[in-house]
Amino acid sequence: MAEKRPFDILNGSLNNTVIIGLKGGVEFRGTMVAYDVHMNLVLEKAEQLVNGEVKRGVGTVLLRGDSVVFISPS
Amino acid sequence: MAEKRPFDILNGSLNNTVIIGLKGGVEFRGTMVAYDVHMNLVLEKAEQLVNGEVKRGVGTVLLRGDSVVFISPS
Amino acid sequence: MAEKRPFDILNGSLNNTVIIGLKGGVEFRGTMVAYDVHMNLVLEKAEQLVNGEVKRGVGTVLLRGDSVVFISPS
Amino acid sequence: MAEKRPFDILNGSLNNTVIIGLKGGVEFRGTMVAYDVHMNLVLEKAEQLVNGEVKRGVGTVLLRGDSVVFISPS
Amino acid sequence: MAEKRPFDILNGSLNNTVIIGLKGGVEFRGTMVAYDVHMNLVLEKAEQLVNGEVKRGVGTVLLRGDSVVFISPS
Amino acid sequence: MAEKRPFDILNGSLNNTVIIGLKGGVEFRGTMVAYDVHMNLVLEKAEQLVNGEVKRGVGTVLLRGDSVVFISPS
Amino acid sequence: MAEKRPFDILNGSLNNTVIIGLKGGVEFRGTMVAYDVHMNLVLEKAEQLVNGEVKRGVGTVLLRGDSVVFISPS
Repeated sequence: MAEKRPFDILNGSLNNTVIIGLKGGVEFRGTMVAYDVHMNLVLEKAEQLVNGEVKRGVGTVLLRGDSVVFISPS
Repeated sequence: MAEKRPFDILNGSLNNTVIIGLKGGVEFRGTMVAYDVHMNLVLEKAEQLVNGEVKRGVGTVLLRGDSVVFISPS
Repeated sequence: MAEKRPFDILNGSLNNTVIIGLKGGVEFRGTMVAYDVHMNLVLEKAEQLVNGEVKRGVGTVLLRGDSVVFISPS
Repeated sequence: MAEKRPFDILNGSLNNTVIIGLKGGVEFRGTMVAYDVHMNLVLEKAEQLVNGEVKRGVGTVLLRGDSVVFISPS
Repeated sequence: MAEKRPFDILNGSLNNTVIIGLKGGVEFRGTMVAYDVHMNLVLEKAEQLVNGEVKRGVGTVLLRGDSVVFISPS
Repeated sequence: MAEKRPFDILNGSLNNTVIIGLKGGVEFRGTMVAYDVHMNLVLEKAEQLVNGEVKRGVGTVLLRGDSVVFISPS
Repeated sequence: MAEKRPFDILNGSLNNTVIIGLKGGVEFRGTMVAYDVHMNLVLEKAEQLVNGEVKRGVGTVLLRGDSVVFISPS
C-alpha cells in the first residue's frame, strides 16, 4: 500500500467542496481552487459559517494558512 | 488548465475593493493598492468594520500580514 | 532497552483510532491514516467532540500540526 | 505606473501623525520618527487610545513590530 | 560542581511519574517514556487533570512540545 | 538629518526610568540597565503596575523580549 | 563601566530564589538551578503562586522558555 501524506488530502480536494476551520472558531465552506505549501487556500462560492449556520456569502476568499486549524472535504 | 496559486488572488485584486479579516475579528474594507510576500497589505479609502457595520473611515491603512486571517475580493 | 521517540507513537497509531486535542479545546476522534513531520494529521471516519460528546461527524479531516496539543491512541 | 510596496507607506509617514493598532485592541497616536524592517516603530508626542478616546499621553514610545496589527497615516 | 542543564530534568525523569502543564491550563500526569529536543513528550498510564482533579484516564498520550508550559517530576 | 532607528530609543534609555507594556496588559516601571537584540530587558528598582497603579515592588526584573509590546521613557 | 546583558541576571541568580512569571499569569517561586539560551529554567523547592498566594508545592520544575514573561531575583 502506498504511504499517504497529509497534503494528498489537499490535492484530492481541488475543485471540490471543503469546510475550513480557523483559529477563533470561524469556518468557511466553498470550492477549493488553490493551495500552497503554507496551507494558504482559495475558496470560490464560499460562505462564512458560525455555529454551522451560514452567516454570509463571500464569493472568493483567500485563507491564510497560519490561521487554518482543520480542512474537511464534504 | 493552468494551476492556480493563492497569491494570484492578491495580484488579481490590486486596485479593487477587498474585505480583510484580522485576528480578533476586526475587518477592513478598501481598495488594495499594495501587498508583499508576507501578506502585508495596503488599503486606500479604507473603512474599519465591526460586525459588518462601518465603525470609522481610516483613509490609507497598512495591515501587517501576521494578523491577516482572510482576504476576499468584493 | 531501545530508546523511544515521540514520533514512534504516531507511526504505531497509523490505521488505529486516536483522539486529537487542539488549541482552544476542540477534539477530534477518528482513524489516523497519515501524518508528517509537522504533525499535520489526517483522520478518517472522524467525529468532532465537545466536552467528550460527539458534536458532528466530519468524515475525512486534515488537522494542521500547529494547532495540535495532544494525540492519544484510544 | 510604478509598483507600490507596503513599506512605502512607512517611509512616506516619517515625521507625520499615524495611528497604530496593536494586538489586544490598544492604539497609539503620535508622530512616527523611526521604523525598521521588523515594523518596530517609534512615535513622539504619543497618546494611548482606548475606544478612540485618549487614555494618557506617553511622550516617546517604541512599539514592538510583533504586536503591530495596522498602521494608518492620519 | 558540574553545570546543570534544563534537559537533564527530562532525561532524569524517564520512566518516572511527571506532571505536565499545558497552555490553556490543562495538565496531564503519567509515566514519561519518551521526549525529543522540541519537548514533545510521551506519557503512559496518563490522566488528564483539571484543577488538580482527575478528569479522565487517557492511557498513552503524545504531548506536542509547543504547548508545554512546565514539567514537574512528582 | 541623521536617520533614526528604533533601537536608538533603547540605547538612549539606559540608566533612565522606562515604562514597559507586556502582552496581557501588565506593565513594569523601573530603571533600564540592560537590553539585547531580542528586546530582552533588565529593570532595577522596578514596580509592577496594574491599571497605572503600583501593584508591588519587584527590585530587579528580567523581561523577555517576546512579551514586550511597548517601551516608553518616562 | 562594563556593559550589562540581560542573561547576566540569569547567571547571577543561579542557586538563588527567583520568581518566574509565565504567560497566562501563573507564577512560580523557587531556587533556580539551571537555565539555557532559550530561557528554559529549572527551579527546585518550587511553589506555584496564584495572585501572590502559594497554590501548591511542586518540588522540582522545568519551565519552558517560550512561556516565560519575567524573571525576578527575590
